[in-house]
Amino acid sequence: MARRLRLGMVGGGEGAFIGAVHRLAARMDDRWELVAGCFSRDAARGRRSAEALHVPADRAYADWREMARAEAGRPDGVDAVAIVTPNASHHAIARAFLDAGTHVICDKPLTTTLGDARDLVRAVRETSRVFVLTHNYTGYPMVRHARAMVAAGEIGAVRVVQVEYPQDWLATPIEETGQKQAAWRVDPAEAGPAGSLGDLGTHAHNLAEFVTGLRVESVCAELTAFVPGRRLDDHAQAMLRFRGGARGMLWASQISPGNENALRLRVFGEKGGLDWAQEHPNQLRFTPLGEAPRILARGAGALSLAASHATRIPAGHPEGYLEAFAQIYRDAAEQVAAVTEGRAPDPASLLVPTVEDGLRGIAFIASCLESSGRGGAWTALEA
Amino acid sequence: MARRLRLGMVGGGEGAFIGAVHRLAARMDDRWELVAGCFSRDAARGRRSAEALHVPADRAYADWREMARAEAGRPDGVDAVAIVTPNASHHAIARAFLDAGTHVICDKPLTTTLGDARDLVRAVRETSRVFVLTHNYTGYPMVRHARAMVAAGEIGAVRVVQVEYPQDWLATPIEETGQKQAAWRVDPAEAGPAGSLGDLGTHAHNLAEFVTGLRVESVCAELTAFVPGRRLDDHAQAMLRFRGGARGMLWASQISPGNENALRLRVFGEKGGLDWAQEHPNQLRFTPLGEAPRILARGAGALSLAASHATRIPAGHPEGYLEAFAQIYRDAAEQVAAVTEGRAPDPASLLVPTVEDGLRGIAFIASCLESSGRGGAWTALEA
Amino acid sequence: MARRLRLGMVGGGEGAFIGAVHRLAARMDDRWELVAGCFSRDAARGRRSAEALHVPADRAYADWREMARAEAGRPDGVDAVAIVTPNASHHAIARAFLDAGTHVICDKPLTTTLGDARDLVRAVRETSRVFVLTHNYTGYPMVRHARAMVAAGEIGAVRVVQVEYPQDWLATPIEETGQKQAAWRVDPAEAGPAGSLGDLGTHAHNLAEFVTGLRVESVCAELTAFVPGRRLDDHAQAMLRFRGGARGMLWASQISPGNENALRLRVFGEKGGLDWAQEHPNQLRFTPLGEAPRILARGAGALSLAASHATRIPAGHPEGYLEAFAQIYRDAAEQVAAVTEGRAPDPASLLVPTVEDGLRGIAFIASCLESSGRGGAWTALEA
Amino acid sequence: MARRLRLGMVGGGEGAFIGAVHRLAARMDDRWELVAGCFSRDAARGRRSAEALHVPADRAYADWREMARAEAGRPDGVDAVAIVTPNASHHAIARAFLDAGTHVICDKPLTTTLGDARDLVRAVRETSRVFVLTHNYTGYPMVRHARAMVAAGEIGAVRVVQVEYPQDWLATPIEETGQKQAAWRVDPAEAGPAGSLGDLGTHAHNLAEFVTGLRVESVCAELTAFVPGRRLDDHAQAMLRFRGGARGMLWASQISPGNENALRLRVFGEKGGLDWAQEHPNQLRFTPLGEAPRILARGAGALSLAASHATRIPAGHPEGYLEAFAQIYRDAAEQVAAVTEGRAPDPASLLVPTVEDGLRGIAFIASCLESSGRGGAWTALEA
Repeated sequence: MARRLRLGMVGGGEGAFIGAVHRLAARMDDRWELVAGCFSRDAARGRRSAEALHVPADRAYADWREMARAEAGRPDGVDAVAIVTPNASHHAIARAFLDAGTHVICDKPLTTTLGDARDLVRAVRETSRVFVLTHNYTGYPMVRHARAMVAAGEIGAVRVVQVEYPQDWLATPIEETGQKQAAWRVDPAEAGPAGSLGDLGTHAHNLAEFVTGLRVESVCAELTAFVPGRRLDDHAQAMLRFRGGARGMLWASQISPGNENALRLRVFGEKGGLDWAQEHPNQLRFTPLGEAPRILARGAGALSLAASHATRIPAGHPEGYLEAFAQIYRDAAEQVAAVTEGRAPDPASLLVPTVEDGLRGIAFIASCLESSGRGGAWTALEA
Repeated sequence: MARRLRLGMVGGGEGAFIGAVHRLAARMDDRWELVAGCFSRDAARGRRSAEALHVPADRAYADWREMARAEAGRPDGVDAVAIVTPNASHHAIARAFLDAGTHVICDKPLTTTLGDARDLVRAVRETSRVFVLTHNYTGYPMVRHARAMVAAGEIGAVRVVQVEYPQDWLATPIEETGQKQAAWRVDPAEAGPAGSLGDLGTHAHNLAEFVTGLRVESVCAELTAFVPGRRLDDHAQAMLRFRGGARGMLWASQISPGNENALRLRVFGEKGGLDWAQEHPNQLRFTPLGEAPRILARGAGALSLAASHATRIPAGHPEGYLEAFAQIYRDAAEQVAAVTEGRAPDPASLLVPTVEDGLRGIAFIASCLESSGRGGAWTALEA
Repeated sequence: MARRLRLGMVGGGEGAFIGAVHRLAARMDDRWELVAGCFSRDAARGRRSAEALHVPADRAYADWREMARAEAGRPDGVDAVAIVTPNASHHAIARAFLDAGTHVICDKPLTTTLGDARDLVRAVRETSRVFVLTHNYTGYPMVRHARAMVAAGEIGAVRVVQVEYPQDWLATPIEETGQKQAAWRVDPAEAGPAGSLGDLGTHAHNLAEFVTGLRVESVCAELTAFVPGRRLDDHAQAMLRFRGGARGMLWASQISPGNENALRLRVFGEKGGLDWAQEHPNQLRFTPLGEAPRILARGAGALSLAASHATRIPAGHPEGYLEAFAQIYRDAAEQVAAVTEGRAPDPASLLVPTVEDGLRGIAFIASCLESSGRGGAWTALEA
Repeated sequence: MARRLRLGMVGGGEGAFIGAVHRLAARMDDRWELVAGCFSRDAARGRRSAEALHVPADRAYADWREMARAEAGRPDGVDAVAIVTPNASHHAIARAFLDAGTHVICDKPLTTTLGDARDLVRAVRETSRVFVLTHNYTGYPMVRHARAMVAAGEIGAVRVVQVEYPQDWLATPIEETGQKQAAWRVDPAEAGPAGSLGDLGTHAHNLAEFVTGLRVESVCAELTAFVPGRRLDDHAQAMLRFRGGARGMLWASQISPGNENALRLRVFGEKGGLDWAQEHPNQLRFTPLGEAPRILARGAGALSLAASHATRIPAGHPEGYLEAFAQIYRDAAEQVAAVTEGRAPDPASLLVPTVEDGLRGIAFIASCLESSGRGGAWTALEA
């Protein structure tokens, strides 16, 4: 049996949402153990977090630069680091660990500038480290199955892509109440130049490209900040042109009441359609043209290898958000182990988003910002 | 008891879809009887149709001009005419009957040019005739209830409007097979300059305006003809700006497999959201911000007067497309009867779309065509 | 074109629910015109109803015996009579019209005693009149399609039948408030010995037999009256044994909050399953064993002749309760016309429930009452 | 931070389904570490399993009696044992560990005889050990919320309980193909006297009692083995009487095509209803009488403490089967830690099913078997 890999974490201290999700995801398939961390910019808080997480005191770092250096120097140093800080610090932290020779698992969006994103792409190539970006929705088995179906031509050439990701939790200015999750997401200094577009739109963009295998070529976008006083967009709408001629629409919103986390992707080809919704992720609606719609289910029947690779329990026993997130960690473990062991990874583990996907997400943000600023002109992605 | 009103029809002969729907809708609530018609440009076919419809032979006309004249001259002439021909002939026929003093019920879109549309608006004003445009989806009780809720402020000021109307029946070039319904809809000479945009997009546009009470101010659109050889768009996507600041998106498609007649409207305000889908029209999802979503049902509880006015049978006994269409005819009957009897109509009957709504639909088409032609620039509606 | 048939009605005066539904159903497909009626036991009320319904004063009868006699004597007498009175009077009225040579369309349940039911079966045979029982749910296209699929062996031999019909409108003693619909349904003198079992359970029983083609052989039942003071059951549950070995369960309830008219049938065979719910009647879920579930839709693809015979408009344009009810009237018209014209009826029109189906429903009631009274013993149906 | 508790396991070797689920559930919330096991009756297989699970070789036992003894004697012995063997061995194994002073987490059903079940109840009382029965569906937050709502009177006094648990995987005799999961479940020597009733019916019975707080008083049941040659029931239907007067129906099936793991519970009270389905477990439909149905969601709004205690991530991020199962392990950890630390446990942890619940499940099986054998007579539960 392969040993458990050693994981470090930057960010994710007490009260953080996504850090706890990463840890749970890492634990689920028993391929990782959390052994080190720099959990908070506040040292006392960081220590408390480490203790609660069974991380030894001597590996609870107050500074991530120190952590990168120290862990690289230990024989039992971390195999990989999970970066779960606000967007603006991703680049520097990732760069430090890559340079130290540590594999990286990084939350999205990749960076807050195109330049930083390109720098990370270069650094990953130069260091030959594994770099996994947690566009976690690609970990869902039925998302992977949708991708496999498109690739196999089951819906024919793609014509139309409809992707949407509405939420409602920022419909009022809760950032003014001290809500920590909200506060950094609406602050350009932490979140970068995009609000809903960066937080949700990049997931939607990534999901659309992941499933269709197509690339967004240009966008025509409009960003709006509906809540008075908000400095970043809380609502983003865009029309999409894909290379090869497909057309699409993308909608991201943080202010649409009745939507919790309603990511949904619909893809229509010459021969059929696919429809997947994150809140009921175990089903995939497949609509071959001229035939009755079929409800494909995770774990059932003769699904693709890509789907069965990402499933743990039988059909009818719902898996959810955490299992999909865990799949990213399971695949990251396989990739890291393969590098460590000097072998080729299981090809099924290669579906996880990469630093290049991250760069395309940042280019997507940049193009939408430009298009919106120019009054809706079609704007090409530079990536 | 009020007498049944006398209805004439132009178009709708053997094999026509929408003509049969109009007749069924007219019959449902027993306020109309069909007594005259010019059912086909082919005289023999017109006679056969008349006979099958129990229309006397002497009122089965071969020419609609003759019909307008003759019926206006009879003491028992038609109270109103239903125009169910392809779009390009709406204007001339409507004009002829209005000028003869006959009330008009006209299928949508109103005309194929802005000039014709404006002419009809003028003619209606000058003749003081009732003019009802069959944007039939406004006849659904839960659509009217949605409108009443927005008007009553139950979702607060509207911020976001998402409307879509995909179908799939034109995903292949079935017009080449001689399918009559398809043939005229893809032919600019019959359908006008817009394909999916005219057939579906105008319904979507009308529904969005009807429910929100807002007006589309400008559009940023892209029209595509995906099926090789097709001369009119079979796919339309647009971003919308509403007067007052709301934003929205509109999607119409005839080539998206798995969609039969999937008109859906979502409206999000500062305090709540609404979600209605035509294929399950008896429910309306209401999502007050911060509370559990509620499934409102036609016929249930304390719905608005506007909704109960348009419902026939109790909750749980589904009404459908024909009942909604019939509501347009029921309301038209009330308006016509009121004019005839020299009294004010029941206010609840005034919700049916008017010639002005029709003009706005034609302006919407024109602006989308222009925006798409100019590469996605924001284009104001001239209406 | 065939002439419109002449319809008379007994019951269904002002304020009645089901009478209005029958009239609307009769009107929808333009095969009937209402020309006579005995709409109320109250003469003035009956006259007002007749006038409102455009029925001539001389054919507005105060007594149904007089109506049966008088109409039979007119050259333009009614072809058929619709009986829409409370259950207890069905037998006498039906008998009178049959004996006068008039075809009968009768609401369900057929009678309130087994003896009366058997008497009507005999009378129909002796008079050779058409007798149609309005188990209206059999008029839904997807119900007929389900029947056709079972008959064609598409789900293999049937093993399990689950049928339920819950409502909630009698969860409180609204009969004490003077609600007319409730009052007669909970009064043994009007409704007969069964409450929810007669009103809903017979529909459920009929639907199960109609779709599966099987016959209930014996029942094990329990009836309960939950609302204090109520004399008839408002909740019925039963286990079913079908001839040939299938097993099933039936649940009818008038006191289960959140259920409007939630009739649902599920049938499971050796090779597949079917699932149909009345509140979303345009879909039928088909689950071939080992394959992805398929959502069959009214009007779509290659449905059975039985289904397309009962459909008016294309898929995606929902039909509902009234259309299904109208189908019973359309088929009744075909049967009556065939007798009148001395020809064989369209075979597709023969699917409507008969007097024999009605007898089986009464036998089902009797067996459930007996089983419940004997403490749940399995009790055979005598029919 | 509390130390991780030490878990041993009996059963669950290579290829087992439920053992892997237990381990994943134990790992999720980081309160347990697996340190010992007797994973298989086959020693080599047991060793391989242990190695794969990072269990030290000296704690990989070939015999569970030896394991019970040895672990009880170690200072670092297991705090609790998870028993995941076929039903027939639960009693002996549980008894051995209880007698050795080890806490027990046991799969369901508790035993295969009433006598064994009563013996375990006694043993738990005498040893004062924690005994948790993995009726895992009670770990779902919305199930716990439903229970809290009923207890708080939000639906009034319960009148009707409808519970069903159909599957389809045994619709054909797959046990003859060597399918391991199927083989033991249809073998009386391993599974005990009940098939679908024991495997699924006991979950359904437990869920009904858990949510309503009511106790089944007597049953009227019919068990059927539809697949030729099968010795245990693969289909069970029962009517239920609850103490206090509520009525209900229970359906369990392994042969109903189109059902994967379709456990569903509906409860109707005097004032409202609840509807929960395992395959979409994050929602709970609440239908207050006379008001619009509401869709309550895990993680949203002001849910009960019982629900929020069992939730990890926000609304819209679906949790599933594994998270619900993990909740049982999290609560078991709290109970075990409380005993170890000599303190009272968090009251919220006490909702997990107990040995007494297990006894009631066995009594339910016994009564259904007796009722079915006696031809459907109402039979009281002896528990």
